[in-house]
Amino acid sequence: MTIYEAPLRDYRFVLNELFDVSELSTFPGYGDATPEMVETVLAEGAKLCEEVLLPLNRSGDEEGCSFENGVVRTPKGFQEAYRLFREGGWTALAGDPAYGGQGLPHTLHFFVEEMISSTNLAFGMYPGLSQGAYSAIHNHGSAAQKKTYLPRLLDGSWSGTMCLTEPQCGTDLGQIRTKAVPGEAEGFYKITGTKIFISAGEHDLTENIIHLVLARIEGAPEGIRGISLFIVPKFRLAKDGNLGARNGVRCGSIEHKMGIKASATCVMNFDEAEGWLMGEPHKGMRAMFTMMNGARLGVGMQGASLGETAYQTARQYAKDRLQGRALKGARFPAKPADPLIVHPDIRRMLLTIRAYTEGARAASAWAAMALDRASHHPDPMIREESEDFLALMTPIIKGFFTDNGFIATNLGMQIMGGHGYIREWGMEQLVRDCRITQIYEGANGIQALDLVGRKIPAHNGRALRRFFHPVDAYIRARLEKPELQEFVAPLAKSFGRLQQVTALIAQKGLVDPEEAGAAASDYLRAFGLVAFAYLWARMAEASLPKLGGSESAFYRGKLATARFFMARLLPETNALFANITAGAKPLMDIELDAF
Amino acid sequence: MTIYEAPLRDYRFVLNELFDVSELSTFPGYGDATPEMVETVLAEGAKLCEEVLLPLNRSGDEEGCSFENGVVRTPKGFQEAYRLFREGGWTALAGDPAYGGQGLPHTLHFFVEEMISSTNLAFGMYPGLSQGAYSAIHNHGSAAQKKTYLPRLLDGSWSGTMCLTEPQCGTDLGQIRTKAVPGEAEGFYKITGTKIFISAGEHDLTENIIHLVLARIEGAPEGIRGISLFIVPKFRLAKDGNLGARNGVRCGSIEHKMGIKASATCVMNFDEAEGWLMGEPHKGMRAMFTMMNGARLGVGMQGASLGETAYQTARQYAKDRLQGRALKGARFPAKPADPLIVHPDIRRMLLTIRAYTEGARAASAWAAMALDRASHHPDPMIREESEDFLALMTPIIKGFFTDNGFIATNLGMQIMGGHGYIREWGMEQLVRDCRITQIYEGANGIQALDLVGRKIPAHNGRALRRFFHPVDAYIRARLEKPELQEFVAPLAKSFGRLQQVTALIAQKGLVDPEEAGAAASDYLRAFGLVAFAYLWARMAEASLPKLGGSESAFYRGKLATARFFMARLLPETNALFANITAGAKPLMDIELDAF
Repeated sequence: MTIYEAPLRDYRFVLNELFDVSELSTFPGYGDATPEMVETVLAEGAKLCEEVLLPLNRSGDEEGCSFENGVVRTPKGFQEAYRLFREGGWTALAGDPAYGGQGLPHTLHFFVEEMISSTNLAFGMYPGLSQGAYSAIHNHGSAAQKKTYLPRLLDGSWSGTMCLTEPQCGTDLGQIRTKAVPGEAEGFYKITGTKIFISAGEHDLTENIIHLVLARIEGAPEGIRGISLFIVPKFRLAKDGNLGARNGVRCGSIEHKMGIKASATCVMNFDEAEGWLMGEPHKGMRAMFTMMNGARLGVGMQGASLGETAYQTARQYAKDRLQGRALKGARFPAKPADPLIVHPDIRRMLLTIRAYTEGARAASAWAAMALDRASHHPDPMIREESEDFLALMTPIIKGFFTDNGFIATNLGMQIMGGHGYIREWGMEQLVRDCRITQIYEGANGIQALDLVGRKIPAHNGRALRRFFHPVDAYIRARLEKPELQEFVAPLAKSFGRLQQVTALIAQKGLVDPEEAGAAASDYLRAFGLVAFAYLWARMAEASLPKLGGSESAFYRGKLATARFFMARLLPETNALFANITAGAKPLMDIELDAF
Repeated sequence: MTIYEAPLRDYRFVLNELFDVSELSTFPGYGDATPEMVETVLAEGAKLCEEVLLPLNRSGDEEGCSFENGVVRTPKGFQEAYRLFREGGWTALAGDPAYGGQGLPHTLHFFVEEMISSTNLAFGMYPGLSQGAYSAIHNHGSAAQKKTYLPRLLDGSWSGTMCLTEPQCGTDLGQIRTKAVPGEAEGFYKITGTKIFISAGEHDLTENIIHLVLARIEGAPEGIRGISLFIVPKFRLAKDGNLGARNGVRCGSIEHKMGIKASATCVMNFDEAEGWLMGEPHKGMRAMFTMMNGARLGVGMQGASLGETAYQTARQYAKDRLQGRALKGARFPAKPADPLIVHPDIRRMLLTIRAYTEGARAASAWAAMALDRASHHPDPMIREESEDFLALMTPIIKGFFTDNGFIATNLGMQIMGGHGYIREWGMEQLVRDCRITQIYEGANGIQALDLVGRKIPAHNGRALRRFFHPVDAYIRARLEKPELQEFVAPLAKSFGRLQQVTALIAQKGLVDPEEAGAAASDYLRAFGLVAFAYLWARMAEASLPKLGGSESAFYRGKLATARFFMARLLPETNALFANITAGAKPLMDIELDAF
């Protein structure tokens, strides 16, 4: 089985030494969220993940979900785990206290989600989707809808879904054909159509399932401007709020997938199902974007989370497995061979996993604290700035973290050789599970287009400045500090080039959007690497004064990883900047018949 | 199901337009191998692969091998496919005519192997392993052993295995514990021990299975210098050559793996099995290396081969799937949306797959023709030069091709989004199957160490010159040709830097082998990219004069891919050279407790 111990020490580092989580408890509504409280909750979450979710990860993968006569069954143990999950209050963690939530900060919730995904990504899908439905209703639902659905989503007795994709369209939601015919009551519609790839569309964990469904009201404008959002519960609700008859929505089949096999991916057939309009007609995409943006941050975290499990598992293997001798001669002459970890190439792989995983954790905290500021900071200016920053970082977190997660889990496998490829150790499951994170919630190419096409130009680059200004200020303040040069110098260089290519893309993209499109994926990756360089410089700076203390190994590890990142991972930007500069011609000057 | 049509047109290009395969028919023993003959055989092979092997690929993956009471059953249809495979003479293709082989060139065999792997990698493992055993016995067996085993391996009635790995050792074969106790007759030993990860160790395709087993004769020196190689048949042979009683070797279980599920990966238990020493005592590694080197070229080809299937499948999807509009405005306004292939990022992914796959095909032909020269050229000097070249290229072909194959199959999946992740299309199987190629036959990190630790320093860089000299001459001869500058200039620049880092590694590695080890993986990749740049320049040069003819689309495609390679893939060397220059310190200056 994979090895996992929640990185509580690293959470402390990120929340208290790199950032200052105590800021959050000064916001109205977050008074309870003191650093001590945060730490206690994380420790409780760690226990649940290590003791309940991790042991079900491989059996869940082996067994998968089953489908029979419209009924989906989750693997053995999932119902009991979900019961414990609910009882622990984990479904309500960041929910609005007005509806039974605990009102804790997103920052805390992010790290709990990391632990859940690290130990059982497939399980995490169920509460994760509910969280998305909760957000959409909380932000866009009517008072009555909130009152009806939010308490049940937060106590976990009901779950939620996002029903977007149809057979003929995924990315291009303007092609949606599911139709909504107005019914007798106001806001009431009959929904008919087929949705595919619906995570948690049907399962046996909750009493009811609340589908949020994109559909087109009869006579609506064509394309994306004619899409509305509906609430379609699996069981209709009686006047008293109790569950009524089954609604006209059924699971037609479940997908057989490469991974996350314990997460039910359903074909959902709507046949005059009773649905309730949420928000205004034809404005469904707005609410759906709320849901998707939250989900994209969560998916980014998923990618990074699997890197942690891959690291811990591969590290143990590399320390235990005796194979060959160190290139300079035996390091452990008394043993029949040296452990793998003496080899430079094994270290390269381990440190790559670690640099990506801990970099992502720092970046997540940065983004999550912005999310908390955006929702709870008393100053509206700071709220706006934080929203801008978050809008900018969302595609990067989704795309960069998940690409790195896939690299990381594959490196974990590579360290273990054949033992990583067979199922026994669980490493190959991490690879298979991680792979979906690059695809769902908008494939990473779409994230890149979102970054160059929407986020950079928005408000004349206002969002961009929320990243460029603080990083620029950080660098300037440290140019004269010799002990930081090994970190700040490479950061400054790559940051300067990122600014250059940003200007280049903005300029060329105005004339020819295909120039921006051709640069998009490489630009997103370069942006991610520079952001990580900034965070690794800060992590190194935070660690330097603490060398020699009782936790010296922890800080030496941080510094070593920071050095490794600058020396061996940041140079990838050299390639990416060259690719970006090469422009669109090498991609677009090819006729279709020549492919 | 995946889409695959054998790339016969591209084989013609590589064999006749890029290289000159007619050279082979001038070598003694290869008289039959005219270009026409080569083409006919490839077309026959294509038919078998498209019609017999491809349809079994997904069902084989779904069903996998089964194991019961020591008996391994291959999936439905494999026995019949293997019968057709044998009847077509494919097991004897490159075999020595003295033992019933067809004596055709390795170059031809390579491409047949590509088609087999493209359509059914798991199936290809069975004849592939037999080929390895054939080579080892052909090169190192006694006359009697050759007479006994080779005809049956070539007619396919028997198959072979390589039994190296044990639970405690894979890479580090010096730790082998399987022991050999001398028996009554000369050359006869009783073999006892456990081998793991034995591909084709047990199955139902052949009458007998010939295991080549590494073991330690009692009292042998410790480590790698005490390892001998034994022939251990599943069924003992009676005096008359007929099958006798079952030998003391049994399959204990089969592995459950991420992919190649139709290939049986066995735990083999040897219990006083009768074995016959092959070659001299304690010199077993030599023969095993013969086998491994051939196998490494084959595995490299496997990686590349899956890229072809990924390309064809993803290309079709990208042309058919209507999703969104071209960034500059609708390209197909009459359709509800434009096909994916209008998008720059989709093209980037398609062209990456193609550049790697066709680059690998060209490099394979280059290496395979060297293999044919090494074995059949009348001039001993050319034989030696060819062997040097092959020794140099083997780790690059194994490591670079398979890493690219994994990138390629994953890009294929990414293009298809969720449809690539579900099993239906077969794309996710390509990813899972491809993943093993980076691990088996020496994990890619080991290939990199072989390159920097053995191949570069060997004979004072003699092997290296077999690559550097012709590339250097090629560049010099074209510096003045303006129409080639877009290809030759980037080649020349990256080639110059490759020479520099080669000198750097050779120099630093002499003082500190960990410096070479720390650079190894990045160096192998940089070498591969520069080799591909050379081949893409040559492919562009061969295509330029043919534009405007009846096959213009084919040549435009080649040129576009060459341009794409130079502009968007070769710049990765910028990152790799920077990594190499960063040295070993960022990897080695970390104590174990800080990981």
